[in-house]
Amino acid sequence: MTLSDNALLTDLYQMTMAQAYLEQGMEEPAVFEFFVRRLPPHRNFLMAAGLSQVMDYLSTLRFTSGDIAWLAQTGRFSPTLLRYLEGLRFSGSVDAMAEGTIFFPNEPILRVVAPMPQAQLVETRIMNLLNFQTMIASKAARSVLIAEGKPLIDFGLRRAHGAEAGLYAARASYLAGFAGTATVLAGKEFVIPVFGTMAHSFVQAHKDETESFTHFAQAQPDNVVLLIDTYDTEAAARKVVALAPSLQAKGIPVKGVRLDSGDLADHARKVRKILDEGGLPHATILVSGNLDEYRLRELIRSRAPIDSFAVGTAMTTSADAPSLDCAYKLQEYAGRPCRKRSEGKATWPGRKQVYRERTADGQWAYDLLTTISDQHRGDGLLQPVMRDGRLIAPLPSLAAGRTRAAAQLAQLPSALQQLEPASPYEVRISDALHTLTNRVDKGG
Amino acid sequence: MTLSDNALLTDLYQMTMAQAYLEQGMEEPAVFEFFVRRLPPHRNFLMAAGLSQVMDYLSTLRFTSGDIAWLAQTGRFSPTLLRYLEGLRFSGSVDAMAEGTIFFPNEPILRVVAPMPQAQLVETRIMNLLNFQTMIASKAARSVLIAEGKPLIDFGLRRAHGAEAGLYAARASYLAGFAGTATVLAGKEFVIPVFGTMAHSFVQAHKDETESFTHFAQAQPDNVVLLIDTYDTEAAARKVVALAPSLQAKGIPVKGVRLDSGDLADHARKVRKILDEGGLPHATILVSGNLDEYRLRELIRSRAPIDSFAVGTAMTTSADAPSLDCAYKLQEYAGRPCRKRSEGKATWPGRKQVYRERTADGQWAYDLLTTISDQHRGDGLLQPVMRDGRLIAPLPSLAAGRTRAAAQLAQLPSALQQLEPASPYEVRISDALHTLTNRVDKGG
Repeated sequence: MTLSDNALLTDLYQMTMAQAYLEQGMEEPAVFEFFVRRLPPHRNFLMAAGLSQVMDYLSTLRFTSGDIAWLAQTGRFSPTLLRYLEGLRFSGSVDAMAEGTIFFPNEPILRVVAPMPQAQLVETRIMNLLNFQTMIASKAARSVLIAEGKPLIDFGLRRAHGAEAGLYAARASYLAGFAGTATVLAGKEFVIPVFGTMAHSFVQAHKDETESFTHFAQAQPDNVVLLIDTYDTEAAARKVVALAPSLQAKGIPVKGVRLDSGDLADHARKVRKILDEGGLPHATILVSGNLDEYRLRELIRSRAPIDSFAVGTAMTTSADAPSLDCAYKLQEYAGRPCRKRSEGKATWPGRKQVYRERTADGQWAYDLLTTISDQHRGDGLLQPVMRDGRLIAPLPSLAAGRTRAAAQLAQLPSALQQLEPASPYEVRISDALHTLTNRVDKGG
Repeated sequence: MTLSDNALLTDLYQMTMAQAYLEQGMEEPAVFEFFVRRLPPHRNFLMAAGLSQVMDYLSTLRFTSGDIAWLAQTGRFSPTLLRYLEGLRFSGSVDAMAEGTIFFPNEPILRVVAPMPQAQLVETRIMNLLNFQTMIASKAARSVLIAEGKPLIDFGLRRAHGAEAGLYAARASYLAGFAGTATVLAGKEFVIPVFGTMAHSFVQAHKDETESFTHFAQAQPDNVVLLIDTYDTEAAARKVVALAPSLQAKGIPVKGVRLDSGDLADHARKVRKILDEGGLPHATILVSGNLDEYRLRELIRSRAPIDSFAVGTAMTTSADAPSLDCAYKLQEYAGRPCRKRSEGKATWPGRKQVYRERTADGQWAYDLLTTISDQHRGDGLLQPVMRDGRLIAPLPSLAAGRTRAAAQLAQLPSALQQLEPASPYEVRISDALHTLTNRVDKGG
């Protein structure tokens, strides 16, 4: 079963509504925008990610004959809908913020303009893709901001929420500035550097810890990073020191050790001393084990001699905020702007643009949310990506997105770079947008 | 790209370790067990789920020629490993708890016995599959326990962590007792009932709310559930009442309404009154919008006239505990029991079995964790599933798992059925297991 490009990966109501639209001949252009209503607790900003997967989805959306046959046998759908789905190709337009762009609540990061049934059908998967990668990039960026340049590696696949979550978390965290991932498939699919050491089971499978180190070194002579906490961390560090000369004689350098349990800062100091005194000053220390940005900051502040960090579950699941309060909302139909006024969920109507206003010396001052027709100098953050179902140009590569993300994080006001909640960055609503909203509410 | 059955969906170190094992001729049987170390906060029990997907994975595990070519060009792997992977078929044995079984910390729910390189290679994906579905079933069961039999529906796909998370959350929540899902593909793949209503965008796309209701009813005459909170909930309920006779005259009954915002209990009461007084006493009220088991309990306790509940993000992401502290640990190699003694992560060695001990009147008394060779009356919870890479018998269907889950929840001690943390259910360690552990620690 190929999950990721299955057109049936949607909510039932998308199909029932499409059927109703078709029966009423409501195929005029609909404008939907994807945005986040509120920042999650403990977040000062968000980072756009997942656009590449959304464009893949829209470009390849097809209902197979098997899908159509299955839908038909449910007895829920009209022949009109089934014929429509059979021939469906996404023919709409998309404008979006580039991946790696920092954004704030109520700012659309993606706008879809398409015949209503199409624009509606793609809602679920677009949200599913953008919510996840944006959430992960936004979480991972927090670790990047406080790591002082030390390499961070994604170790989260085993507790990611399924296959796609693991793969896309590797992608989104690399976009945000991680150095790489342990997930092999992410290396193949996205050209992300892949890292790995050894597991406790490897040590346990041997009767003797030193023998396990020797075997691993012989099998991976270019990447000898030894896991030393299976039994007694410092004792194992001394075994590494004792073993290193004989490995070196065979041309196998010990590149480093990994610590995965206990007081990591304390173990790192003791192990560093053992390695230094044992003639291994260049062997690095990688730590792992329930790390998140707060633990990372503690370890960094402690000045423990740690060279790199593997971050797993907390990042891959965005454990403290495992979803975004995101929405994909109708903003205009058949040329008529509209908005939702449900309690606590009201939205700004119409097609919108976001401008990042700067101070005289180039600092970020505030963002301006306005209508697309509002005259304004400078480039808006949403740029054309697709027209008539075709990409205007190839999307920026993941590497280019990573460069953009790094530049954005460097420009981010310093208060927003902290882990603790700061005063919200101002998103100013333009006069033009206020005027439009009033007009819509009056039914004008 | 087919994600879900890709053999490269694993951690790099599984491959480097496999290479080391092969080079040392360490292909003796290895025994790994999957278990959860600790309950997440706010959980009194766990429910096993995901075995079916694990068995699919093991049964179909193949490295394609493309996988091998990609691994070769990385320059990291020996010809020995690449040849091995090319011909790899999982040839091991699996014992497991049936899906829907309730279990507790330190109890293995799955045991793999296979030649070491195989048993190691499958670690990452087995954990990825069992962690997620078990976490979701355990979370969803809490809502089932307090819903007093009212139908619960999974609405979570849009904020699930990718495609597979959405699909498997639909499956795991149905296993735990949900009535169905909005995810169409879950209906097709797992024969789960699919539910859906309409979205706010449908109402907004019309100039008039009543017109939107009419159009929807005409398109879905057998399933008229109208969303009434887009602008003013009670006003919309009155519009439904006014519209109903003309729809009824065409043979289209209004089956119900959905509320998605505001004070749901208050709106439900007012809407119920409007519907009752308007001649629609049989029209049901479905509520949705940021529900979790606590909100659900409040609504149930309020005796608000709500007929069914759609539960989304909080369940699909297991928002309050988005991962389990789970492990897949080596317990024996080449006939020699072993265990990990890392600080805070020590494990019980050897092949183990779990017995659910009962009182004279059939109540659950405690669980006994013991060695597999310990003589004990009754059936253990782990039962043979696969031998020599082949399923012993077809796995129980999802429907059978759901029946088992319901029976388990009914038997669960009442203190553990509450949402608040109860005294932990006792998992007693047998004398035989203590004796084995002492022997292993002495290196015997």
